[in-house]
Amino acid sequence: MKKLETKNRTWREILHEVIYEADTRQGKLFDIILLGMILISILLVMLESINDIDDKYHDQLYIAEWVVTIIFSLEYIVRIISIRRPSKYIFSFYGIIDFLSTIPMYLSMLFVGTHSLVALRALRLLRVFRILKLSRFIGESNQLMVALNASKAKIGVFLYFVLIVCIILGTVMYLIEGADNGFTSIPRSIYWSIVTLTTVGYGDIAPQTALGQFIASITVIIGYAIIAIPTGIVSSEMTKNKVNLNTQSCPNCSYDKHRDDAEYCYHCGTKLN
Amino acid sequence: MKKLETKNRTWREILHEVIYEADTRQGKLFDIILLGMILISILLVMLESINDIDDKYHDQLYIAEWVVTIIFSLEYIVRIISIRRPSKYIFSFYGIIDFLSTIPMYLSMLFVGTHSLVALRALRLLRVFRILKLSRFIGESNQLMVALNASKAKIGVFLYFVLIVCIILGTVMYLIEGADNGFTSIPRSIYWSIVTLTTVGYGDIAPQTALGQFIASITVIIGYAIIAIPTGIVSSEMTKNKVNLNTQSCPNCSYDKHRDDAEYCYHCGTKLN
Amino acid sequence: MKKLETKNRTWREILHEVIYEADTRQGKLFDIILLGMILISILLVMLESINDIDDKYHDQLYIAEWVVTIIFSLEYIVRIISIRRPSKYIFSFYGIIDFLSTIPMYLSMLFVGTHSLVALRALRLLRVFRILKLSRFIGESNQLMVALNASKAKIGVFLYFVLIVCIILGTVMYLIEGADNGFTSIPRSIYWSIVTLTTVGYGDIAPQTALGQFIASITVIIGYAIIAIPTGIVSSEMTKNKVNLNTQSCPNCSYDKHRDDAEYCYHCGTKLN
Amino acid sequence: MKKLETKNRTWREILHEVIYEADTRQGKLFDIILLGMILISILLVMLESINDIDDKYHDQLYIAEWVVTIIFSLEYIVRIISIRRPSKYIFSFYGIIDFLSTIPMYLSMLFVGTHSLVALRALRLLRVFRILKLSRFIGESNQLMVALNASKAKIGVFLYFVLIVCIILGTVMYLIEGADNGFTSIPRSIYWSIVTLTTVGYGDIAPQTALGQFIASITVIIGYAIIAIPTGIVSSEMTKNKVNLNTQSCPNCSYDKHRDDAEYCYHCGTKLN
Repeated sequence: MKKLETKNRTWREILHEVIYEADTRQGKLFDIILLGMILISILLVMLESINDIDDKYHDQLYIAEWVVTIIFSLEYIVRIISIRRPSKYIFSFYGIIDFLSTIPMYLSMLFVGTHSLVALRALRLLRVFRILKLSRFIGESNQLMVALNASKAKIGVFLYFVLIVCIILGTVMYLIEGADNGFTSIPRSIYWSIVTLTTVGYGDIAPQTALGQFIASITVIIGYAIIAIPTGIVSSEMTKNKVNLNTQSCPNCSYDKHRDDAEYCYHCGTKLN
Repeated sequence: MKKLETKNRTWREILHEVIYEADTRQGKLFDIILLGMILISILLVMLESINDIDDKYHDQLYIAEWVVTIIFSLEYIVRIISIRRPSKYIFSFYGIIDFLSTIPMYLSMLFVGTHSLVALRALRLLRVFRILKLSRFIGESNQLMVALNASKAKIGVFLYFVLIVCIILGTVMYLIEGADNGFTSIPRSIYWSIVTLTTVGYGDIAPQTALGQFIASITVIIGYAIIAIPTGIVSSEMTKNKVNLNTQSCPNCSYDKHRDDAEYCYHCGTKLN
Repeated sequence: MKKLETKNRTWREILHEVIYEADTRQGKLFDIILLGMILISILLVMLESINDIDDKYHDQLYIAEWVVTIIFSLEYIVRIISIRRPSKYIFSFYGIIDFLSTIPMYLSMLFVGTHSLVALRALRLLRVFRILKLSRFIGESNQLMVALNASKAKIGVFLYFVLIVCIILGTVMYLIEGADNGFTSIPRSIYWSIVTLTTVGYGDIAPQTALGQFIASITVIIGYAIIAIPTGIVSSEMTKNKVNLNTQSCPNCSYDKHRDDAEYCYHCGTKLN
Repeated sequence: MKKLETKNRTWREILHEVIYEADTRQGKLFDIILLGMILISILLVMLESINDIDDKYHDQLYIAEWVVTIIFSLEYIVRIISIRRPSKYIFSFYGIIDFLSTIPMYLSMLFVGTHSLVALRALRLLRVFRILKLSRFIGESNQLMVALNASKAKIGVFLYFVLIVCIILGTVMYLIEGADNGFTSIPRSIYWSIVTLTTVGYGDIAPQTALGQFIASITVIIGYAIIAIPTGIVSSEMTKNKVNLNTQSCPNCSYDKHRDDAEYCYHCGTKLN
């Protein structure tokens, strides 16, 4: 009885190792196959959304989608079985995404019109970040994350400021231009001011009056200078990271900030550790 | 008599502390409630500007707007009462904004068509910056402000240069393209050149002739390189700030902002800790 | 005879000092008046280009323009008289601009249709840079100029690279999209690729085919990363300038890179010069 | 017999030196002439693509194109002859481009409709980079390349992240907006999200629903902050390079790229000059 329990736990442990971790050969293989399945499932959703292709190959796509759905369902079940506390997975970020990308296909059998929700499967692409944790990219993206984390608060203040400017500008333009020139409501005017200040500029709404164009011009020039701010924040953060990268100090004169590949102190010539 | 005056002054002082300052619990509470009221009032203005919603809930919105207006009016009166020199508040930046965001509702009873000016209430959002002074963001935005202040003059020269380029470019394009291709006047051409050089590019006006497109292409490529300038200015300013970040102060003259590797005060030569 | 010549020379010297230099009070006054005249002349040209205003005030604008023209003509003549070698001024950059901004008005009396060339007067705005040399902005713009000069070659290589990419991309899109989708010729396709890669994106020409949109998407993402290059160049140049700004070294330990306002060496505490 | 072989080799060696290298006067001359021919051939292709010009000068352009084609064919043949292992050239990057830019003209005699492929000749512009290797620009572009190479991995991670965001955003917008508002398929929605996030914003597809505009606004503001990342990467990389600019090499181990204030070699500890 005890042995069976041990064996059972071991079996679950093996599954857990394969599915949740990536140190072993099987774990890596599982991740690569999963990545391939996700890419295929997204390709299917894309192809189905193109009318011409859907008309021609509707049945094949439908079958392929069911195959993918069943495989994802099995994966979902195995994930729940192989973890000790299933609720920890089910209510995790990736657990919810996995659920949302599997359920629409079943729902489409019960309710008409819910089939298009299958496109939510694209969210599974996020798991790629999880899988790539094992790749050599981790170092690169970690360094990025450190710089972004450090400048998070500053960029937050900046975005908050941009948002307030956009609300005020949108309101002012609503008063100046009015519904006749496309600024039909304040939220829509704010949408315009965001699209303008970020230099996207669709042109679906554009100022028509002379005063509106004048204000838009000034805004746009100021916005042009504003774009420098987040860049400056991240740049300075990354430059700082770069300079401080090597923190070892010379055992003789205790000078620091050596090159990463330095073997001797640049100040006194002592051998570094 | 004297006591009553003292009491009166004290009562005014308490009000002043609650309304104008934020150190006490009541002061913070007042600021949070005010912030909420401002957000509600802006939401009301937005909802009212959307035709569908205004048609359905016009009466409710109208009543809610009057409630907000009366509360803002009371706040305005209390602000005037609680300060020793009312003129100092009335003609201050925030005083004028508070007035402009309260008066349109009263005006709309006297004059038809002034109701839409209620949207000026969005300007009150600026007070958020005032209120947030007390938050933890102050450090972040201050650092930003220092960098922006330091690079103000340089960005000014840059914007001035961009403006002159836009005026000349606008005039040249007016001569080349002419009224038939949408460049109906020089100010409108300048509007186009500003929208183009800042890479917004609405497309409501676009060069049609081969020569116009050629000049636009060259401009746009140069503008692409120009965008690097304000970014470079702010980046270098922020990087510089980083180097000066060291906050230790000299034990003798209490100057701060020493280099990180400084051993002696740069001002008085005292050995630093 | 000799005295008259001396007097004549002195008279010319005084004029030269007032017009070409700005150290004296008269020189500054002349510059300010000239700046005002230039701004007025450009305002006149702008107003005249707006149909509504031109219809109403055509005669007044016409007279005002002749007044400005005559004043500019007088200035031009005085500039030639007061300089020892007139050819040096006439064929200089500013001399040609001054000529081009004065002559169209006279030409418009002889030839019909040349009147619109009066708009060339906007080029005189460039003289503002000359005049501002005397202002406090000189330091700021000089520092900018140093950084831009230092990164000129690098930005040149970059722009050259962008241009080649645009030509190749334009040609490829011409083959893919063809005349039916707005890519009527290779130069026009190149115009599109420049407008796209610089993120202006008018939308007057946009890819319609699936393949064209796919290539445009990739280009645009690469261009998004490319925009980082000129910014990086200028940023690093300006950062370098900032750090090297103070080149004095300590007389005792010869450490350099002191703060601009340092009075004592940060390394050994010796008084700096 | 042996002598003839030697002579033959020498003759091929001379040709090889002229065509493939640029140290000699003939080599430089050949490169300049080739550069001129490439520019002329591209100009011809451009002119031919403009209908008005092609209608007028069709015969002259056709003859000129044949002249260019024959010269390029001769160059291609000589390149093959003068190299010891022709396959090394034929299957090299430039070899394939040279072939692709020569063959369409011959194909157009056999198959109707392939003439427009002549435009592939624009690819030869890439050879300019090869030729410019000998110019003074090499230093500048090399420095750029070093910085770009160093930040390649980080920019790769960034672009990968942007792409995933675009796929998810495109799918979400496809669900929200639907085919009626221009988001006819998921790939097309992804095209829209790429065009939007990179701030190009053609406006050929733009969100129409309130929810779509709300999501677009948020995306665009986040994208505005994201644009700071690649810039920060390159900026910090170039700033770092600047610090390493010192070109003195160690007298002992000849390592270079020492810190500017280095006194001892970081590799072998020898005292630097």
